[in-house]
Amino acid sequence: MFINNMNCILLPKDAKSISDPNQITHIKEILKSEVGDSLTIAEIGGNIGKATITGINNNEVLLTDIILDKKPPAKLDLTVILALPRPKVLRRLIMDMTSLGVNKLIIVNSYRSQKSYWQSPLLNRIDEFVFEGLQQAIDTVPLIVEFKKRFKPFVEDEFPALLVDEDGEKEQGNAVIAHPYASQSWKTYLDVAKCKTSNKDNMPKVLCIGAEGGWIDYEVDLLCQHGCKAVSLGPRILRTETVVNVLLGHWLEE
Amino acid sequence: MFINNMNCILLPKDAKSISDPNQITHIKEILKSEVGDSLTIAEIGGNIGKATITGINNNEVLLTDIILDKKPPAKLDLTVILALPRPKVLRRLIMDMTSLGVNKLIIVNSYRSQKSYWQSPLLNRIDEFVFEGLQQAIDTVPLIVEFKKRFKPFVEDEFPALLVDEDGEKEQGNAVIAHPYASQSWKTYLDVAKCKTSNKDNMPKVLCIGAEGGWIDYEVDLLCQHGCKAVSLGPRILRTETVVNVLLGHWLEE
Repeated sequence: MFINNMNCILLPKDAKSISDPNQITHIKEILKSEVGDSLTIAEIGGNIGKATITGINNNEVLLTDIILDKKPPAKLDLTVILALPRPKVLRRLIMDMTSLGVNKLIIVNSYRSQKSYWQSPLLNRIDEFVFEGLQQAIDTVPLIVEFKKRFKPFVEDEFPALLVDEDGEKEQGNAVIAHPYASQSWKTYLDVAKCKTSNKDNMPKVLCIGAEGGWIDYEVDLLCQHGCKAVSLGPRILRTETVVNVLLGHWLEE
Repeated sequence: MFINNMNCILLPKDAKSISDPNQITHIKEILKSEVGDSLTIAEIGGNIGKATITGINNNEVLLTDIILDKKPPAKLDLTVILALPRPKVLRRLIMDMTSLGVNKLIIVNSYRSQKSYWQSPLLNRIDEFVFEGLQQAIDTVPLIVEFKKRFKPFVEDEFPALLVDEDGEKEQGNAVIAHPYASQSWKTYLDVAKCKTSNKDNMPKVLCIGAEGGWIDYEVDLLCQHGCKAVSLGPRILRTETVVNVLLGHWLEE
């Protein structure tokens, strides 16, 4: 069984009780809560707050004094394009991206994504992984996840629209593809784009990350033709999960 | 079974053949290598290079034309102090820290590290996890891992020596503890310390990272009394594995 770290209990709108078995187990066995105890709760898509437990049984935890007075943390102005990885790592990748506040994730096919990956039952459990990430990070607004099984039409027809800013202008260099063999480093990119820690506005809006084995040249070239800048993370070859967090660390909030 | 991503085959000094069953499986089943093929190899503690396969059987892969002409990537000037986490996450944590080039890892006891964690058989497999991280990142120099089961004596007697620079001077602010309730943010810390992407010399030399549930106030206070600066990563509560990679991303090489 997955161990699920719930820093808040995320509930549907207007819920007065908790009936999700994982949440009940967490309240009873990890928090060891009792009647009268306070619980950090949050409303899906809504606010974060507290409630007091008025009853606990095997199927339900009853709540009263529900106060939802705190806004969720802001989402990052960032879309991640991820080559479909081994399904086994998908859960942690999605949990982490959700926890770190990525706004949208587009999972694309790539040459090195094995065909069998698309058949995995884990692809039907994305909502669950997003939910876990929200409860981990005390957030309420789900990561938007889309799948694009055809790489070329996606890049040619849909990708360019992701790079357009609020004024409808296409900005140079606001999409980055992580590629070990790129001549420019991520660090230099950040320096050049004046993406200082204090100025988040200059951070890229789109980040493309490969699966195990990385992108093939054709994929890098096609993305670069459509506005991506290829950047290298240095000589060390990292796991996809590591790359995602290493890069997203540069978007952390003040 | 663990899936192990070997971007190089790491061998003992002067090895002329490969007898490790995991490496043989990788060569046969993942790389699908044949006699005559070239293989990326590296020598533990030595250089990286190539060899040609002259024979493959169930117990051995024979090599010739071994050229080890490339130095391993530089290690980071960084010691990580990690509160003993759930053993289940230890493998990935150690693999990632190794892959990212951390020089030394000191695993300490903390109030929120359960006593049973110290009994885990996974603690005897650290070398294996380091080895995996090296083969992932194409590095040859093992991460140094130490255990300190007594927190207070470690912080009082051994920790201060980690903060002394090459001149024997104790530098202010070159140790950081990640703590969600710190008043200063990691971003502000980086700005203040002028830790620009182009200036790695100002990066902290020591990074203290808690386990699930974080450090207790007593631990944060003790570390801060001995030269640590507490920094927050923002309102989102992250998994230990995520925090490690998010922070280490700021040390990435040019």
